[in-house]
Amino acid sequence: MSKPGLPQGTRDFGPETVHKRNFIFETIRSVFELYGYEPIETPAMENLDTLLGKYGEEGDKLIFKILNNGLDHVSKKETARAAFENILNGKNDTGITERALRYDLTIPFARFVVMHQNEISFPFRRYQMQPVWRADRPQKGRYREFYQCDADVVGSNSLINEVELTQIYLTVFEKLGIDVEVRLNHRKILAGLAESCGGESQTTNITTAIDKLDKIGIEKVKEELLEKNLNNDQVAVIEKYLHIDGNNSEKIQQLISLIPNKYTKTGLEDLQYILKFFNGENPEQSSGRKQKSLKDSGKVELDFSLARGLNYYTGIIFEVRAKGVNIGSIGGGGRYDDLTGLFGLRGMPGVGISFGVDRIYDVMEELKLFLPAVQRSTQVLFFNLGEEAALKSFELMQKLRKEGIRSELYHGQAKFDKQFKYAEKKRIPFVVIIGSDELSSGLAKIKDLKSGVQREVGFEEIISIMNYGL
Amino acid sequence: MSKPGLPQGTRDFGPETVHKRNFIFETIRSVFELYGYEPIETPAMENLDTLLGKYGEEGDKLIFKILNNGLDHVSKKETARAAFENILNGKNDTGITERALRYDLTIPFARFVVMHQNEISFPFRRYQMQPVWRADRPQKGRYREFYQCDADVVGSNSLINEVELTQIYLTVFEKLGIDVEVRLNHRKILAGLAESCGGESQTTNITTAIDKLDKIGIEKVKEELLEKNLNNDQVAVIEKYLHIDGNNSEKIQQLISLIPNKYTKTGLEDLQYILKFFNGENPEQSSGRKQKSLKDSGKVELDFSLARGLNYYTGIIFEVRAKGVNIGSIGGGGRYDDLTGLFGLRGMPGVGISFGVDRIYDVMEELKLFLPAVQRSTQVLFFNLGEEAALKSFELMQKLRKEGIRSELYHGQAKFDKQFKYAEKKRIPFVVIIGSDELSSGLAKIKDLKSGVQREVGFEEIISIMNYGL
Repeated sequence: MSKPGLPQGTRDFGPETVHKRNFIFETIRSVFELYGYEPIETPAMENLDTLLGKYGEEGDKLIFKILNNGLDHVSKKETARAAFENILNGKNDTGITERALRYDLTIPFARFVVMHQNEISFPFRRYQMQPVWRADRPQKGRYREFYQCDADVVGSNSLINEVELTQIYLTVFEKLGIDVEVRLNHRKILAGLAESCGGESQTTNITTAIDKLDKIGIEKVKEELLEKNLNNDQVAVIEKYLHIDGNNSEKIQQLISLIPNKYTKTGLEDLQYILKFFNGENPEQSSGRKQKSLKDSGKVELDFSLARGLNYYTGIIFEVRAKGVNIGSIGGGGRYDDLTGLFGLRGMPGVGISFGVDRIYDVMEELKLFLPAVQRSTQVLFFNLGEEAALKSFELMQKLRKEGIRSELYHGQAKFDKQFKYAEKKRIPFVVIIGSDELSSGLAKIKDLKSGVQREVGFEEIISIMNYGL
Repeated sequence: MSKPGLPQGTRDFGPETVHKRNFIFETIRSVFELYGYEPIETPAMENLDTLLGKYGEEGDKLIFKILNNGLDHVSKKETARAAFENILNGKNDTGITERALRYDLTIPFARFVVMHQNEISFPFRRYQMQPVWRADRPQKGRYREFYQCDADVVGSNSLINEVELTQIYLTVFEKLGIDVEVRLNHRKILAGLAESCGGESQTTNITTAIDKLDKIGIEKVKEELLEKNLNNDQVAVIEKYLHIDGNNSEKIQQLISLIPNKYTKTGLEDLQYILKFFNGENPEQSSGRKQKSLKDSGKVELDFSLARGLNYYTGIIFEVRAKGVNIGSIGGGGRYDDLTGLFGLRGMPGVGISFGVDRIYDVMEELKLFLPAVQRSTQVLFFNLGEEAALKSFELMQKLRKEGIRSELYHGQAKFDKQFKYAEKKRIPFVVIIGSDELSSGLAKIKDLKSGVQREVGFEEIISIMNYGL
């Protein structure tokens, strides 16, 4: 019998990790709900047709496809063989793989909106927290199975949504204790930059190059732009653009004087609308001053170098970074004009944000932000000292559990020593000892394993001790 | 563009259903934790090797296998073709499908225990609530993706575990408001029955036939037994066995006089040990009398006709049925001698139970047991009446949200009528109206849409109204 293993890029989570991850999920969930976002869930499997062509050619290759079952029953084995040959030749063929694992939550959401459009009241605020699967090469921090946590509102052009989503970011990270900066930019400003540097047709090249700034540095970005047939003057403007600095109002002034066209104007109007909602972060005030609003643990910063890769965003884009750690972005999102056009439903604009739970977990571990209370393991162990005593313990434990106190009876009769060791190993803070002496005296021994304090108490007192301490 | 659809046997869940399902999951989770059970999570994908051969030949066919990615890169296309031919011929071959979707939570748990045996303190109480996938033919109430909710304790032979698991069943269903009967039997009693009817070698045949009693009725069961070479006398004993009736102590007496062998003796000792813990359910009392214990909503009943299919159980077996509905079992489980032997770790006995969440959901819908508070949608809608008023509303909403009140700002300026309609359609109970008049007076209008009552109140009063009503 060979030792069992796990598929590359996948993970088991033990109790401690599950509790910590659930704390993150539940924090995000509760904030989403405070803002009127409602949960949906979609199946892990989608029709492969639904997914193909939505993530680019490279994406198609990274989708996990599920082999049809019952292929041995197929009368047309030749058809199956032909489909398999197509796959061997790198072509997409859904003949023997009709289903696949979802690759993100956005396309399943778009499918959901189209399929359920008659039941939904728009604007539809939905959140979704489920795993996705990608056949990426596994590496540190990159997994083949990982959770996405998305909130989107569709069917609304209102910038109020961007304001609320920014506030969701700030509230979630405040609750988690992570000091963050929410960075904002606007796709129209990137379009404005392109317009003034080689024309709109260069938007993709410029966005792609800027998106790499963090990874490859300014010199390499300039090289890449020159290769794309931008001239030195144009590259110089882009370099100046990337060096825009200061507080939000200083950044806005620099942008206006560098690229005073209609695109940047529109983009700035949207951004300024949003900033207005964040006291102390509006352009009239210094961004260096300490905030006095709800948002003590975070602030909202313009960052014109923000690009958010090549995706379907058309308006405001978001990114969140934690201060004091070097872990990259822990959230991102933006506005799009058309969520569902690919599935035949036009005119469905929206805006959404996403939380990077694996990275948030890493940040919280690195900064030691998980409180011990996040763990929900046993609070009190009842020793097992014979059948009659166990019956009494069982009765008391039922009362404790009614009060929400996590209680455990040692699983079998054993020496004191062994039962103590078990409690210590599982870090159970209290033990209760009821044996034949205690049964006749009507008093139980209760011991706080951390302080070493032990007392004899009436059976009914145990509950209050568990609630208020020894 | 063809209309998008869902793979057969899979489901989307909208907000209302997700909230209801989460209520069930969270109730089960909280009770598991009260009893010292801790959560683990395993990946959706397992190595196909880990799963094959664990669920019988029929099970192997129902496992969803994932096609390897990058088959077009393979230099040995011939090997891939050979593997595919094997699959076409109905053979198991992991050559082009190294991974598969988990089929249940038990085998992944066994793998987890073996892989993490050095980190785990035994006995290990774990719970796991995750989806599983089976390529079964979809039909009413049977899906290809569904959740399992399992709690198991491994590394312990103590019957205290069975007592606690029975209590977990009773507590969960009490919390959900479902009146249930937890039925108990013992595999040793089935072995005792076989011993007295054709010998131990008939255990499988007899168990399999009895397991079908509910579906096919007693006459068909008898036919099946006769076909398996049992004689008329033996079948008559089995029929008498299946007709054992009365309260728990009456059933025990009937069993003892019908099959007085060492197997039934051992089985009964275990069962009586457990019954002792349930006041009013012990053999000395009538099971007809109303319970006065914690377990008002459920009772523990012996059911010697319980078989729990052909699986690895060796001791006590459980099944839960809801009273007043005809939905079959909503939970089941039992004791096993050897969880991990298949993966090379011997001597790991345990006992576990499972909750059938889909059926529990159906029972709760049928009996109208979901309270409106299960829904967590928006509690108050702020009307949007211009930018300045929206800023004020945003500020007030932040305060409400700090108090945990789910608040929403209407997404754009619109006529009163339209904003009211939105609130009604989304069944939001309160609306707050702040326009320019209200800004200057410092009073907001708040309306309870159900009663129609409307009042003018100071901005700061809104919170207390949301908490205590108009």
